[in-house]
Amino acid sequence: MKTNIQEVEKQFLQYVRKMMAYKEAISLMYWDLRTGAPRKGIDQRSEVIGMLSQDVFRMSTSEQMAAYIAELSAKSVQEQLSSVTRYTLAECQKEYERNKKIPADEYKQFVILQSKAESVWEEAKAKSDFSLFEPYLKQLVDFTKRFVTYWGTNGHPYNTLLDLYEPGVTVDLLDDVFSKLRHHIVPLVQQIRESRHKPETSFLFQPFPKEKQKAFSFALLKELGYDFDAGRLDETVHPFAITLNDGDVRITTKYDENDFRTAIFGTIHECGHALYEQHISKELAGTPLYDGTSMGIHESQSLFYENFIARHYSFWKRYYRLLQQYAPHFSHVSLDDFYRAINESKPSLIRIEADELTYPLHIVVRYEMEKALFDDAIEVKDLPYIWNEKYEAYLGIRPERDAEGILQDVHWAGGSFGYFPSYALGYMYAAQFKHTMEKELPFHQLLENGELVRIREWLTKHVHQFGKTKKPLDILHEVTGEGLNPIYLIDYLEEKYKHIYRL
Amino acid sequence: MKTNIQEVEKQFLQYVRKMMAYKEAISLMYWDLRTGAPRKGIDQRSEVIGMLSQDVFRMSTSEQMAAYIAELSAKSVQEQLSSVTRYTLAECQKEYERNKKIPADEYKQFVILQSKAESVWEEAKAKSDFSLFEPYLKQLVDFTKRFVTYWGTNGHPYNTLLDLYEPGVTVDLLDDVFSKLRHHIVPLVQQIRESRHKPETSFLFQPFPKEKQKAFSFALLKELGYDFDAGRLDETVHPFAITLNDGDVRITTKYDENDFRTAIFGTIHECGHALYEQHISKELAGTPLYDGTSMGIHESQSLFYENFIARHYSFWKRYYRLLQQYAPHFSHVSLDDFYRAINESKPSLIRIEADELTYPLHIVVRYEMEKALFDDAIEVKDLPYIWNEKYEAYLGIRPERDAEGILQDVHWAGGSFGYFPSYALGYMYAAQFKHTMEKELPFHQLLENGELVRIREWLTKHVHQFGKTKKPLDILHEVTGEGLNPIYLIDYLEEKYKHIYRL
Repeated sequence: MKTNIQEVEKQFLQYVRKMMAYKEAISLMYWDLRTGAPRKGIDQRSEVIGMLSQDVFRMSTSEQMAAYIAELSAKSVQEQLSSVTRYTLAECQKEYERNKKIPADEYKQFVILQSKAESVWEEAKAKSDFSLFEPYLKQLVDFTKRFVTYWGTNGHPYNTLLDLYEPGVTVDLLDDVFSKLRHHIVPLVQQIRESRHKPETSFLFQPFPKEKQKAFSFALLKELGYDFDAGRLDETVHPFAITLNDGDVRITTKYDENDFRTAIFGTIHECGHALYEQHISKELAGTPLYDGTSMGIHESQSLFYENFIARHYSFWKRYYRLLQQYAPHFSHVSLDDFYRAINESKPSLIRIEADELTYPLHIVVRYEMEKALFDDAIEVKDLPYIWNEKYEAYLGIRPERDAEGILQDVHWAGGSFGYFPSYALGYMYAAQFKHTMEKELPFHQLLENGELVRIREWLTKHVHQFGKTKKPLDILHEVTGEGLNPIYLIDYLEEKYKHIYRL
Repeated sequence: MKTNIQEVEKQFLQYVRKMMAYKEAISLMYWDLRTGAPRKGIDQRSEVIGMLSQDVFRMSTSEQMAAYIAELSAKSVQEQLSSVTRYTLAECQKEYERNKKIPADEYKQFVILQSKAESVWEEAKAKSDFSLFEPYLKQLVDFTKRFVTYWGTNGHPYNTLLDLYEPGVTVDLLDDVFSKLRHHIVPLVQQIRESRHKPETSFLFQPFPKEKQKAFSFALLKELGYDFDAGRLDETVHPFAITLNDGDVRITTKYDENDFRTAIFGTIHECGHALYEQHISKELAGTPLYDGTSMGIHESQSLFYENFIARHYSFWKRYYRLLQQYAPHFSHVSLDDFYRAINESKPSLIRIEADELTYPLHIVVRYEMEKALFDDAIEVKDLPYIWNEKYEAYLGIRPERDAEGILQDVHWAGGSFGYFPSYALGYMYAAQFKHTMEKELPFHQLLENGELVRIREWLTKHVHQFGKTKKPLDILHEVTGEGLNPIYLIDYLEEKYKHIYRL
């Protein structure tokens, strides 16, 4: 009996490796499409991606997979399996059940709708006309509501969606933490607006040649500990990090010659994602466990690097001179002025351009609207009005066009509901990690000394290495000794911005 | 009955598209490995390539494929199929039979040997010691001899190998044309050696910054008609052209700051390959017919561009000024001196560095040795001695080390026998095409006017468009009205080099 189970275990892991191989090929094609694949080859490349994705989907829902799950999930059998196999099986089972619960026909219709909705959204955004997109969005919401009933609910229907991205997080939790964020950030934003000590920022927009920005980005990545033997940096319209395999975690960035912040903070943000995936335990390679455990934990790593490291005074105390070597036009700007300038906070309409203080409010708006959609408190047709009201209430500004309001993000067009909260959760996780880290490491000192590797090592020890073998809220609790607590983020923001704006 | 066949035809083409999709993914991974994939991801990437290659192999030899062949190859059925389906079926059948005739176990052993032999060859080359490689080469030859008996012979056993790369070409044909080449080129090389009018070449080796060479390469490619919307140019250690799909045909090149010829002639050579594949009829996309018809015809296109266009006086009459914009150090070198310098001919030991006159002799040496190996006239252990003797006899130089003699090429280590003749065949095809083209087009004038597109259009009309639907010797006959005739290449070389060296 024992040898038989071991044989099944081996075959199962081999089966999973095959799925991972297809995924690796798909990821490379995706990366290639975004880093310069020639225009005329795109349609055919998309077909190939479609075919391989279908292979993966079929394998994840096959009778063979069902048989592995049946054979290996009995309790007496589980004890004989390696822990990697057990966790892998659990992931596969979760995916199997999620996919199997939706009738095949319905899922196919949804996929077709998704792809249609994305192109309609593009057009609607270009024309800044929500009414074009509205019927598609309504259908997407309706489909998703049905999916939620198939999957089953646990309290609020939105919980089922949250679980897709952030297992364990619920509406009750989010209502609590998001109201606290709002309660503290909204008045702070208001005070800043009225402050008479606004930073001077004009010098940020002096021309900074792309080649120089690129060279500085490479230099910074090396300082941050990004392993170029296990990755590469390329240029894309929208920056991203992507893992092809455990020895190949790539990042991309975007260069704006009139605003170097785009590339520098973008690169550092993606580097945070990449450091996570470069430091997952090699034991998990070739399984679905070699991945970030949730969108929120992933974002906690990118935001840690982007905000807590790269917007920190001590970091620039160390690296401002390096920047000046690549950007001599900063040689007449003092470190203090530079620091204040890159930390300017000003309400803006577009989420991805928001500063670190106002950013969470953009998420709160989206969360409140998604939640209300899924408990039928509001309807799709009401979204633009509600959106604009909320921006006015929380940020003090009001979109004049749908394109810079309700139509700005692609997420809904892709049928992703429940994803947005991860961004703000990641930010709170990061602040909570930082609070714990500071008890164990001389954080400021390490930044000033350029000992960034020690910070990365701490994150690897507490977060990275586990990949998907631990759930997000479990990691948070194990590392920090408590559940999600927004006070660390609030304290960080209040202290920093009261200082900068002399409030 | 009719509708049933159409349904089978549709399914068959869909099945083939699936195989082509895997091949496209494999090609992209191959391209990526050579253009900067990070070192630590290579092993896993190679595994993925292996898995997908296995998928393709399985599909090409599956019972399903056998069923398609059986159902669609009956004569009464063939008449109902589109011509694309008929040719595709023929290709699939050829591959099916070739693969099925080798016992699976034996093929697996061969693949393992291949991969082992390549790494041993690398080591042997680094140590310049043929004896390390000898036992592996012997096994590769023995395997291949057995494969030849499985596949069946037609006259000389080497014919079976030639058929893999150049269908229709035989030992009888090659004996005839290669002896003619030798007969004319060997004395010409000798006369050149004794000429007192050797070109001055030192100015070729002045520093030419990589970025400038790159910019010139892009400019030249545009002039040659390479479509950057259906391709891209990257940098690799060994230049190559690769087709991912009908809208994505990429090339790579190599930059040597002390010898710009590497990049320029290399880029133009690969451009010749790429123009072929960018201009195959779109009707053939998604089938194995969207490919060059043979290695030789492929090489005819690359050599046409590299030698007949880019080493032509009229070409530089047009483009020397453009080069000087990127390389101001040539501004004091006259066009005539430049032309003579880039056409210097001098026997050398390494095939891939040979000039256009001595190049065919490198191929003749390899052909004579391969042929003798496969009719048991010589043994593997005798190869280094015979190699050196032949280099002395034909080129007047003798390798002192195995690394610059018998061990220089990777082909044999990869188990490729019968491939080398394609290089010289391609050269002869090209010269024969050119002879016909000159009756229809004012060749020199087009070069001088920079009307290179008209040359490309002629090649598309006569060669490119057909992809794999016509056999190499059929194309040659249809275009030029005669069988393979080496006189056109011989005339070209004699006229050009007698003029340059004032013989």
